[in-house]
Amino acid sequence: MRVSLIRYTPEPELTIAAAARLCYSQIGVTEILDRLSEAQMRRLLQQLISSGHHSVLEHASFTFGVDGLSRASSHQLVRHRLASFSQQSQRYVSLDSPEYVTPPSIAEDPDLKREFELSVESAFAQYRRLIQMGVPKEDARYVLPNAITTRLVMTMNARELMHVCSVRLCLRAQWEIRGLFEQIREEVRKVAPVIGDALQIKCITSGFCDERESCGIRPLRETT
Amino acid sequence: MRVSLIRYTPEPELTIAAAARLCYSQIGVTEILDRLSEAQMRRLLQQLISSGHHSVLEHASFTFGVDGLSRASSHQLVRHRLASFSQQSQRYVSLDSPEYVTPPSIAEDPDLKREFELSVESAFAQYRRLIQMGVPKEDARYVLPNAITTRLVMTMNARELMHVCSVRLCLRAQWEIRGLFEQIREEVRKVAPVIGDALQIKCITSGFCDERESCGIRPLRETT
Amino acid sequence: MRVSLIRYTPEPELTIAAAARLCYSQIGVTEILDRLSEAQMRRLLQQLISSGHHSVLEHASFTFGVDGLSRASSHQLVRHRLASFSQQSQRYVSLDSPEYVTPPSIAEDPDLKREFELSVESAFAQYRRLIQMGVPKEDARYVLPNAITTRLVMTMNARELMHVCSVRLCLRAQWEIRGLFEQIREEVRKVAPVIGDALQIKCITSGFCDERESCGIRPLRETT
Amino acid sequence: MRVSLIRYTPEPELTIAAAARLCYSQIGVTEILDRLSEAQMRRLLQQLISSGHHSVLEHASFTFGVDGLSRASSHQLVRHRLASFSQQSQRYVSLDSPEYVTPPSIAEDPDLKREFELSVESAFAQYRRLIQMGVPKEDARYVLPNAITTRLVMTMNARELMHVCSVRLCLRAQWEIRGLFEQIREEVRKVAPVIGDALQIKCITSGFCDERESCGIRPLRETT
Repeated sequence: MRVSLIRYTPEPELTIAAAARLCYSQIGVTEILDRLSEAQMRRLLQQLISSGHHSVLEHASFTFGVDGLSRASSHQLVRHRLASFSQQSQRYVSLDSPEYVTPPSIAEDPDLKREFELSVESAFAQYRRLIQMGVPKEDARYVLPNAITTRLVMTMNARELMHVCSVRLCLRAQWEIRGLFEQIREEVRKVAPVIGDALQIKCITSGFCDERESCGIRPLRETT
Repeated sequence: MRVSLIRYTPEPELTIAAAARLCYSQIGVTEILDRLSEAQMRRLLQQLISSGHHSVLEHASFTFGVDGLSRASSHQLVRHRLASFSQQSQRYVSLDSPEYVTPPSIAEDPDLKREFELSVESAFAQYRRLIQMGVPKEDARYVLPNAITTRLVMTMNARELMHVCSVRLCLRAQWEIRGLFEQIREEVRKVAPVIGDALQIKCITSGFCDERESCGIRPLRETT
Repeated sequence: MRVSLIRYTPEPELTIAAAARLCYSQIGVTEILDRLSEAQMRRLLQQLISSGHHSVLEHASFTFGVDGLSRASSHQLVRHRLASFSQQSQRYVSLDSPEYVTPPSIAEDPDLKREFELSVESAFAQYRRLIQMGVPKEDARYVLPNAITTRLVMTMNARELMHVCSVRLCLRAQWEIRGLFEQIREEVRKVAPVIGDALQIKCITSGFCDERESCGIRPLRETT
Repeated sequence: MRVSLIRYTPEPELTIAAAARLCYSQIGVTEILDRLSEAQMRRLLQQLISSGHHSVLEHASFTFGVDGLSRASSHQLVRHRLASFSQQSQRYVSLDSPEYVTPPSIAEDPDLKREFELSVESAFAQYRRLIQMGVPKEDARYVLPNAITTRLVMTMNARELMHVCSVRLCLRAQWEIRGLFEQIREEVRKVAPVIGDALQIKCITSGFCDERESCGIRPLRETT
């Protein structure tokens, strides 16, 4: 899987800090942008993040290119609704070679790996055969397995990135989507270090685990 | 595929009409609800729908149970973001028997049908075998094909139903998802006939086709 | 201010519990609805609420009629975006008599109260006069004060109600909007007691205050 | 009123075109970004806009600073829900001098203008007096009229800008909010000319007026 940050709001952290300052200020945002020092900006941003006042984080957006994610994971990914997705269509794009993801639990056992690859590749061969027999791509794809990869462009603002990372970086999240958001966090960190540091598992922020069983990072919340 | 309307806002059309009337009225919505006659309600609703003032349609929600939709289609379905979905998890639910959808273009040719079924069932057998070998369900499912079915609960309000039907009832939409929304329209019609009639392909409403090629229902829009 | 729950998804708690159960079940939602006992339903709902798995709460919607809210508060209220509002229009509805809200901090002092009323009523008289002089209602309203009341219909699902109550029931929220959500909570409680109990200030749920100063209900979060 | 485009997704039109191309392509978005020529980009963008496939327009966001909009208009503005707003708080910011908007229908008549100004300024004096008497700002503001101005930061993506302009540029929209979106359109045009040209009243795009009475730009739609 390859993740690249292809676009983002210029000076994302300054933009957010200035919007936050505006709410409590007598001057307009262009003046604020001129006056905010680096240190003020950083302090303001950290206050915003630790408080619950996250709506200002929506003023900075990040657009990623993702290649090589399985359709198993992309089906989960597009459940996030405060985000914009453009995804390679299996209805219109015909796949020439079987690119797919092998789960680590399978890849680590040579026998299972061989069986898995055989199964995926034989399904792919059936897909190609159906197309050659004149079946439309959009119907032939019904034999394609979840492991087959896809490409997509995804845009999320910083507030939604915080939310999605809080659930998808959890060790109970599915390993492939967790890997995706680990890469996303690294990409964000390079251009927006304070926001990057705020992309954390929910338990780190709240102090307790709200899943059924804790992985140990944080204790289960006591029942009130 | 089975679709059932399991819940909806009581008196959905009266609710919408009363909310619309409130915007231009000196009295509150409870008084309006008491006074609106059946005929006024119907006329108001038709005016709303033919004008662009659709936000009031959001006050009526419809919740559907859907069984037997392929994962190929459910991946498309959950792209609609002004809706709520709860879907059977392939990470946690282990499938005991291969339930799947065969596309008509394949089903109509006995040879293709046999090949298709063989391919899907052999992938399913591999899935069961991986589970028996100790692979977690969430990883074994990577061999499962798009044809495998899923179950879900979906809630949409009337405004979003209008939007989604406008694109998914189009003859260029994928046949399985078109079939889903044809069933949904029938279900809505039984309890909200005016809204049901408003669930129309976009070209019927706008008077022209905005796809690349027209299916003939409406002509292509002339380029300005 | 008068708040009335005019519509809601029938059996809201059962609907939510059944949708949640579906995600981990081999049967469809209509079967689940038939089989879930009252006790199972309640336990499931409480688990959902204490865990972070709140998306299923979206399957139950609640529609309120609100009369007598000031425009000061309605401007804040409509900032919530996962909700549907239909509001009495000041552009099209002409107001005949000055209905308005007097803040308690003013009402409790007879002199201030008199001044306040005089100010609001004189602005209202100016509004009436502008209309008589032929100024359109939508322009005459520019003299109307924030205190003037409005009427609206609002629909929110249970998940959003939880979120909005978590911030608007906070003692630092504006008193009028806090009063609105206290009434809303009472209305919800009558028809959905488990959900009603879950409509809580954020600090009650999280265990700490994330505002700048704590009111004392919960301590400030320690800085990490 | 002053409107300035303070931030936007770099190369907004190229970003959108590349995301659109990805859906029907075998290569990833970074390769597409490298290869798309200016002419291809423009043609693709125009096709997207004239067809209904607008979701890709969400990958480009625009952030505006707005100063001097009346609270009458800002109350309407924040009803748009697929947008992010940060607004100067009347609860926390105390206003020192009465900045306000005078509607043209009033400003053009010297007598009405004088009365209007007197009314607004006397309300403002009352506001200052209440604050001096110890009333909290958040309560004193109840006497402030709709004409008083506000400042805000607003972020919208190109798809939502198209939608909002389609309704707010209509001659039946309120004059102040129409002026706001005329300025916004000019700002967008400077950095994204194809998108700027697509910010059009709904009737221009659809060919007919769906309001009750037509202003003459386009005829009323015939009733089917």
